[in-house]
Amino acid sequence: MLRCDELGAISDEPGRLTRTFASPAMRRANKLVGSWMRKAGLQVREDAAFNLLGRRNSERRGAKTFLLGSHLDTVRDAGNYDGPLGVLTAIATVQLLRERGVKLPFNLEVAGFSDEEGVRYHTTCLGSRALAGTLTAADLARIKEKQIVKARRRQGEFLGYAEVHIEQGPVLEKNNVPVGVVTAIAGQSRLCVEFHGVAGHAGTVPMNLRHDALAGAAELVLAAGCCGALATVGKLEVAPGASNVIPGHAALTLDVRDQNDPRRLAAVRLLHAKAKIIARRRGLKLTWTPVQQTSAVQCDKALTRIFSRCIAQRGLEVLKLTSGAGHDAAALAAICPVAMLFVRCKGGISHNPAESVNTTDIAPAIDVLADFIQTLATRHA
Amino acid sequence: MLRCDELGAISDEPGRLTRTFASPAMRRANKLVGSWMRKAGLQVREDAAFNLLGRRNSERRGAKTFLLGSHLDTVRDAGNYDGPLGVLTAIATVQLLRERGVKLPFNLEVAGFSDEEGVRYHTTCLGSRALAGTLTAADLARIKEKQIVKARRRQGEFLGYAEVHIEQGPVLEKNNVPVGVVTAIAGQSRLCVEFHGVAGHAGTVPMNLRHDALAGAAELVLAAGCCGALATVGKLEVAPGASNVIPGHAALTLDVRDQNDPRRLAAVRLLHAKAKIIARRRGLKLTWTPVQQTSAVQCDKALTRIFSRCIAQRGLEVLKLTSGAGHDAAALAAICPVAMLFVRCKGGISHNPAESVNTTDIAPAIDVLADFIQTLATRHA
Repeated sequence: MLRCDELGAISDEPGRLTRTFASPAMRRANKLVGSWMRKAGLQVREDAAFNLLGRRNSERRGAKTFLLGSHLDTVRDAGNYDGPLGVLTAIATVQLLRERGVKLPFNLEVAGFSDEEGVRYHTTCLGSRALAGTLTAADLARIKEKQIVKARRRQGEFLGYAEVHIEQGPVLEKNNVPVGVVTAIAGQSRLCVEFHGVAGHAGTVPMNLRHDALAGAAELVLAAGCCGALATVGKLEVAPGASNVIPGHAALTLDVRDQNDPRRLAAVRLLHAKAKIIARRRGLKLTWTPVQQTSAVQCDKALTRIFSRCIAQRGLEVLKLTSGAGHDAAALAAICPVAMLFVRCKGGISHNPAESVNTTDIAPAIDVLADFIQTLATRHA
Repeated sequence: MLRCDELGAISDEPGRLTRTFASPAMRRANKLVGSWMRKAGLQVREDAAFNLLGRRNSERRGAKTFLLGSHLDTVRDAGNYDGPLGVLTAIATVQLLRERGVKLPFNLEVAGFSDEEGVRYHTTCLGSRALAGTLTAADLARIKEKQIVKARRRQGEFLGYAEVHIEQGPVLEKNNVPVGVVTAIAGQSRLCVEFHGVAGHAGTVPMNLRHDALAGAAELVLAAGCCGALATVGKLEVAPGASNVIPGHAALTLDVRDQNDPRRLAAVRLLHAKAKIIARRRGLKLTWTPVQQTSAVQCDKALTRIFSRCIAQRGLEVLKLTSGAGHDAAALAAICPVAMLFVRCKGGISHNPAESVNTTDIAPAIDVLADFIQTLATRHA
């Protein structure tokens, strides 16, 4: 926790925490975290994508590598834990394993990824995707540092990847447990929806002759609330937007997430059908524009089961949950099995200086991660 | 109609029609309309409130006065008919009565009021309220031309007031009739409503743990649609307003109108109760702020009955409707019985250069108004 605070003081902006891809603050952060890695017995380097990598080789020849980590970049005006907590618990775990005198049949590597939030280029997970080798031409067109493709690692090099991260949601707190196992990272559909009606005088157009775009939008907002997936209308704009004018136009965003892709797509289809019915009934024109779509990433069942057992062996309740937010683990899933451990955070608040984690929740996270690595070691012995 | 066009060219702004209280364009308009009044045999003057008044005295000594008219000011970027049509049909009616050789047992006066829209001072009906003597200290505090109070007319001077106006709504067009009788000018409640919830990550907060301010607002929008009165949510603003953030705050305007004050107030109470239930169920905080309230004005039953009979005698369907918009007639109702005749307009469009009236609808309006005055004359004979 002290390290989280020390790291949280390293920012590109005075007075608030903002640390972006390949920035001066990121370089200083890598230097500081690198020194902590060394203290834990890791060999430290920075790869071509500015990822900070600390490595402890196995004595076994030709051993594969198990990767731990998270990201060291932040959003603008960030809290201290989103990202850094995962890197620092990984380092603490390595140190704990060393203290326990544990020998591993695989190499252990800790990554502090250089970009997950995507503040600098609006293209997320540049660091972990460079390492996984899944950057696209579109990504490279947007960035200056083309050499980051060289950070790509060897096919089949990794046994797996495990990431500790704050939940950024209220479920663990609500259930009063310090840590939880992530079963999947949700897929996401983002859409823009517009209802085009007829603006009119609020005093002269009878209710039954109206084509009120906002009334149509309101019906869709409520339909989103019961579509069977996690659905959010975060933005709604009404025109002309005067108190005595019937809205002629309403534009809204629709964000639909689910760990199960067919269920997410069914929810989107349901809402589209519903929007068409609303538009027809109210005499509105509907514009339905998909903006972005990402598939769900399933966490590895075997690794997730180990996490669950380690939690249970510590006498804690095993709570499984889906991550609605994206993570480096989703990028790593392209090249190896992944697992994630969530740590309870206060009020589900994240991407905010008010982000807060109980100090007493950190020990279980480190214990569980160390037990997890030791269990893996016995499996691969 | 040609006069409407000629008058519509007199503007304070180049390229669009805007004519405001006591402006240079208003002076030019009064001069032009005054010349038409003189041609119809009226004696013309401008009162202290810049109202243009044309008068034809009765031969009967001590006769009272019947007032016809509407306003000559406009909104910004106006159409040609909202206001002027009522003044010009009144002048045409006076001319028609002269052609018919009708003698009246009352004086006839035509008013072109100087301010109904309130563009200049954001305080409506300055002209007709000055004449009615109902200006308030708050009105006078906002205006430069304090002398307009001198436009106040003698108590009991008027027998009544009748106004022709475009409907500014779609009801007559929908029912395929050229003119309609107004039974009342609706009262109005204007409110600002806010729902305060908890902003959160669209991917991490489960539906059942959300306090989504927009979802609450959407329920109220739909409740407004079936509250029993004419209710409009014209403005809705959501914060923080990002596609991946659950809305923590939603602010909306509520405009509720009805010709029946108890029914309007009951609708507002119903919506308030509904908003409280919504807020409680969703864990939101509700702010409910009444902004403005005006009572309904009932048109005089006897005058309205005469309008209805005159319409029926011309072989037209008698359609009665409420005015949802305010009019000079509401100001005059403070000092005498009032009646209004609506003329069909295209698509209900008003306060817009696209405002349009069928030329063939004007003759019935003038005929009905002339018949109305003649009927009144026989009653007062």
